[in-house]
Amino acid sequence: MKEKQQNVLIIGAGLCGSLLALRLGQRGYNVSVYEMRPDLRKVDISAGRSINLAFSNRGNKATKLVGLEDKVKSLCIPMTGRMIHDAHGNTFQSNYSGRDYEYINSISRGELNALLLDEAEKHKNVNIYFNKKCKSVDFEKTTALFKDHNTKDEFVEDADIIIATDGAGSAMRKSYYLGKKFLFSFSQDYLTHGYKELSILPKENGDYKTYKNALHIWPRGNLMLIALPNLDGSFTVTLFLSYDEGKYNFNNLTTDNRVLEFFQEAFPDALALMPNLVNDFFENPTAPLGTIKCSPWHYKGNTLLMGDAAHAIVPFYGQGMNASFEDVVEFDKVLDQNLGDWEAIFKTYENTRKKDTDAIADLAIDNFHEMKGHVNQVIFQEKRKLEMALEKEFPNDYSSKYSLVTFKEDIGYREAMLRGRAQDKAILNMLSDKKIDINGNLKDILYKVKQETEAILEDDRIAGLYQR
Amino acid sequence: MKEKQQNVLIIGAGLCGSLLALRLGQRGYNVSVYEMRPDLRKVDISAGRSINLAFSNRGNKATKLVGLEDKVKSLCIPMTGRMIHDAHGNTFQSNYSGRDYEYINSISRGELNALLLDEAEKHKNVNIYFNKKCKSVDFEKTTALFKDHNTKDEFVEDADIIIATDGAGSAMRKSYYLGKKFLFSFSQDYLTHGYKELSILPKENGDYKTYKNALHIWPRGNLMLIALPNLDGSFTVTLFLSYDEGKYNFNNLTTDNRVLEFFQEAFPDALALMPNLVNDFFENPTAPLGTIKCSPWHYKGNTLLMGDAAHAIVPFYGQGMNASFEDVVEFDKVLDQNLGDWEAIFKTYENTRKKDTDAIADLAIDNFHEMKGHVNQVIFQEKRKLEMALEKEFPNDYSSKYSLVTFKEDIGYREAMLRGRAQDKAILNMLSDKKIDINGNLKDILYKVKQETEAILEDDRIAGLYQR
Repeated sequence: MKEKQQNVLIIGAGLCGSLLALRLGQRGYNVSVYEMRPDLRKVDISAGRSINLAFSNRGNKATKLVGLEDKVKSLCIPMTGRMIHDAHGNTFQSNYSGRDYEYINSISRGELNALLLDEAEKHKNVNIYFNKKCKSVDFEKTTALFKDHNTKDEFVEDADIIIATDGAGSAMRKSYYLGKKFLFSFSQDYLTHGYKELSILPKENGDYKTYKNALHIWPRGNLMLIALPNLDGSFTVTLFLSYDEGKYNFNNLTTDNRVLEFFQEAFPDALALMPNLVNDFFENPTAPLGTIKCSPWHYKGNTLLMGDAAHAIVPFYGQGMNASFEDVVEFDKVLDQNLGDWEAIFKTYENTRKKDTDAIADLAIDNFHEMKGHVNQVIFQEKRKLEMALEKEFPNDYSSKYSLVTFKEDIGYREAMLRGRAQDKAILNMLSDKKIDINGNLKDILYKVKQETEAILEDDRIAGLYQR
Repeated sequence: MKEKQQNVLIIGAGLCGSLLALRLGQRGYNVSVYEMRPDLRKVDISAGRSINLAFSNRGNKATKLVGLEDKVKSLCIPMTGRMIHDAHGNTFQSNYSGRDYEYINSISRGELNALLLDEAEKHKNVNIYFNKKCKSVDFEKTTALFKDHNTKDEFVEDADIIIATDGAGSAMRKSYYLGKKFLFSFSQDYLTHGYKELSILPKENGDYKTYKNALHIWPRGNLMLIALPNLDGSFTVTLFLSYDEGKYNFNNLTTDNRVLEFFQEAFPDALALMPNLVNDFFENPTAPLGTIKCSPWHYKGNTLLMGDAAHAIVPFYGQGMNASFEDVVEFDKVLDQNLGDWEAIFKTYENTRKKDTDAIADLAIDNFHEMKGHVNQVIFQEKRKLEMALEKEFPNDYSSKYSLVTFKEDIGYREAMLRGRAQDKAILNMLSDKKIDINGNLKDILYKVKQETEAILEDDRIAGLYQR
């Protein structure tokens, strides 16, 4: 299989598709990318508001791979921890790690996407076409049907392989599902909560209205508000709220007064920063929070799903983009194995990758519960404090679940999940049983946590819990 | 809401639909049932072979509820345990319970369904229509579109409520999914294995060719054969095998010789009882093993999914029909609460029931791994032996996971799963750590198992594992 002779069709030029196009372009493939939206470098398609994302170590592996680490870094705003706003307006910061050099970043989706498109198009073997919406994929013939947004014409493209990076609503995944040509396992799971994006605008002088270098959280048990900084001095704020349960919910917040009353009651300090709240609230859509898993991702050696098209997750671990970028890194590693044919490549990629994307999907849901509720509970706060101290005192010997997932980019999500959950369980139980104590000797505590974590993992292994 | 004035439309006259029709008929509703197949009492639709199912305590709650306990019992063949056939042709029996009065039954799907249809039709307020296939449901208008198999005419029926009991391929569930009128969580998960039904015919004198009162299993690690007795002296045999992995799989068993060679190698003692093997093998279809979960089951107070339409499971716990029958019992209990409107009834039913049907789906997959693999492992065999002894010695104080699921019909599947898994983990770990011993004092062992089980449940509770 000579790489240069292969025609690769990529559906979707979002973050994953444009990164993949760049990487495959660098490797010498003939790459054609079809994107349903207009070119975001020319048309403002985000309705005037920059939407930001969390960018961390796993995503950074990919930007390193394609040689864009420094350029991407210049788009990043470091967030060293969570700034928690309690119901009384008090704030306290909870760092993401006890190691100073570990933090996450806020980055603009649009800016990053534009950078990747620019870099991909520098390769003459990469061509990107906008306003071409994929309607369906014939995975047996390796062809895709598109509709041109402007001319309304439909046309078919074929290729040696098709990779769909067309996001959570993937047209190719729909073709897998509706085609019924093979057994396609599939799930879409919605939380009872939806989300809505709001904003905290900059001060008149362009400064940030609240502390810049943190991910702000207003946890309120069954609902939550968060805010991430943008380079222009604003924050993108996201409200997570039930559709139909509780005193205030998306279905019953129908008037200006009710929205203001709700924020006054739940988030008075945030409301003070958001004179534009009511406008934002009624102009911006309410969107669902869904998890998508499926299998197989590939059909023979013809077609492959990647990124959100294969595994969409809820945003609570800040890992959505990072997981999709890591997909490209893992796929690139499989290409390096020179397996000889696309079916072997796709199969190997899915076999090594799927367990990890399943894990981050589950972890993201765990974190939904942790962020809106647990961060307020004493035992979880004690655990967090202890873990910060352990990471600070023993930087090479301890990493919390959050650190394993976010900063230990050399282990997979599944390993991070299993070890991280066992550690959490060990610490919570030893705190509860008074076997360790927040003021105890740290070396002693580290030893006990490690012992207990291993015991928990071993007990689960004996009970056969990791066999599948 | 006067029960007698309510028109209930049921889609599907399988086991769940005909039981539900009977019960709602008994309660006085006007019930119309539409079934896509012909009347199985008049037309032989099972291609000449009776297919049997496992019937146990939870199913029996439903037959008691409708007053058919004795009639159903006359269709049952008790199976007191698993008869395990090892690779050398040795057999040993492993009872389902240490209590003699706890066993499961083999029952003919067709005979049971016919009985339920007969009983339902005795009520003049119940009408059953055959050869009417549901194409879709308009859940906003509470109408269903049908096609008559004979005349090919399409027609619309409306009702006060529609309950779909149309099985794993439910047309109404498809309407929920495709309608996109509300957030519909849905999953279909296939195992890598499929199944094929085969048979052991009676001896010429009508006797059974092997022991009648057991569920026969030939576990072979990654594949398995099972057999359940029929009243006519035959056994229905089911082969569970990977589609495409291992030396022998469904995709490569394409010739008479290969099938015979496979059985000669894997199941020589079964082969000796199956001179008709090759015929059966190539005449009968290979079918997938899927799990279906979804939510919500109901749309407002208009429509409701029940039975396999709401929660199809793999057959390895013998609970598919039992779970669907228990649905009817639970629904009946909610009707007794006189909640006043259908939306409240449907919501209450789903809230109380879904956690349990989710649990039996997961348990059934656990048992797939246990049946084909674990039953051959020493530590699992020791656990089983110990649990039999505990159940025998302390009949009121101990129940294995299997017994909790199968025979303790007064607790829900979820409680059975949580307690059963914790017990399994406790026993396996204590055996492994030599804290208990198969020859130890039973009273002592019971005490330790209970202590350890409680500790495991408590540790999980503290770690927040049961909150969601």
